Amino acid sequence: MKYPSGIKLNTTKNITYNNRGMNLEADINITNQYYIDNNIAFIYKKPTPIQVTKVDYSRNNALIKEAYFKEPSTTDYNGLYKGKYIDFEAKETESRTAFPLSNIHNHQIKHLENIINHDGIGFIIIRFNKLNKTFLLLAIDLVNFIKNNDRKSIPLNYFEKKAYLIEEKYIPRVDYLKIIDLIYGGMKNEIKKK
Amino acid sequence: MKYPSGIKLNTTKNITYNNRGMNLEADINITNQYYIDNNIAFIYKKPTPIQVTKVDYSRNNALIKEAYFKEPSTTDYNGLYKGKYIDFEAKETESRTAFPLSNIHNHQIKHLENIINHDGIGFIIIRFNKLNKTFLLLAIDLVNFIKNNDRKSIPLNYFEKKAYLIEEKYIPRVDYLKIIDLIYGGMKNEIKKK
Repeated sequence: MKYPSGIKLNTTKNITYNNRGMNLEADINITNQYYIDNNIAFIYKKPTPIQVTKVDYSRNNALIKEAYFKEPSTTDYNGLYKGKYIDFEAKETESRTAFPLSNIHNHQIKHLENIINHDGIGFIIIRFNKLNKTFLLLAIDLVNFIKNNDRKSIPLNYFEKKAYLIEEKYIPRVDYLKIIDLIYGGMKNEIKKK
Repeated sequence: MKYPSGIKLNTTKNITYNNRGMNLEADINITNQYYIDNNIAFIYKKPTPIQVTKVDYSRNNALIKEAYFKEPSTTDYNGLYKGKYIDFEAKETESRTAFPLSNIHNHQIKHLENIINHDGIGFIIIRFNKLNKTFLLLAIDLVNFIKNNDRKSIPLNYFEKKAYLIEEKYIPRVDYLKIIDLIYGGMKNEIKKK
């Protein structure tokens, strides 16, 4: 089994952070790699969109000399699991009481709404770093919260009520597809025999 | 309806290239934007992966001072259509007789094979520029060709036999989902009522 080079960082940080050392993005990337290596799901992080303005082509490898980060137009992760389209955004917060909605762009929320309206599986993964808790909240519950509240953050108790706690373990780190299996249990029957 | 700024380029080039002025990528991007604006499908081009090595954060907008293009690990386009996962790569060729396979990386072919094995819809869109013809070839037929041939290119007559010609028109430019409807006709019944 191959893991991205990030795994080393993990080993080092385990000591400090009670076996939850890596940041959420690294944990999800390793989890996705595990899913790919084991032929379970094909979910990837999209590259960060960058506007390239100057390139030096005079070398063997084209060298970008000037470029800018752009705002992503969709969520960070998408892919395929058991014939279903999977789409999500992942964020960490240092707050112990609420997840600030400023962390998710409006067009990302709109995108997730489109996904669920067209029968895809959309959600967000939110890690409360200080609480060592990582939640999966379905897009429908995210959208409902926003439509019914003026609050600029989603309180922890909304996650405790509506979201699913993702068990963190060694392999795979954040097994969010276990939650998806739990919610969409009937899906398994839809897998086509090859 | 909003179109990306590329549409202007189109108007200019119409004269020269017999109403097929834009390059394939621009045509597909406009088509995808049309699908999004009309609530038909949510398919996006993934950003080009770039390895950023030096950033100047001293300004208002972070300025990337050094970066390199990386090889994409998957295909360029993916998304959701009628509850189904869609995944494809698009390429142009100047050849009149065959599409050189060197244009598609081995790991992209492996990726498309994974997609179809997990019940996603995978394909390639190939435009023969000199012939003014754009084909949709299903990933299964791409994989079969590669497994059964030592050739380094797919001859035009394989496309004529196995692929689907995409009609090019004004709006949407390259209506590839029409072909998907044709092939997966029964899919329409799968749309969930909301």
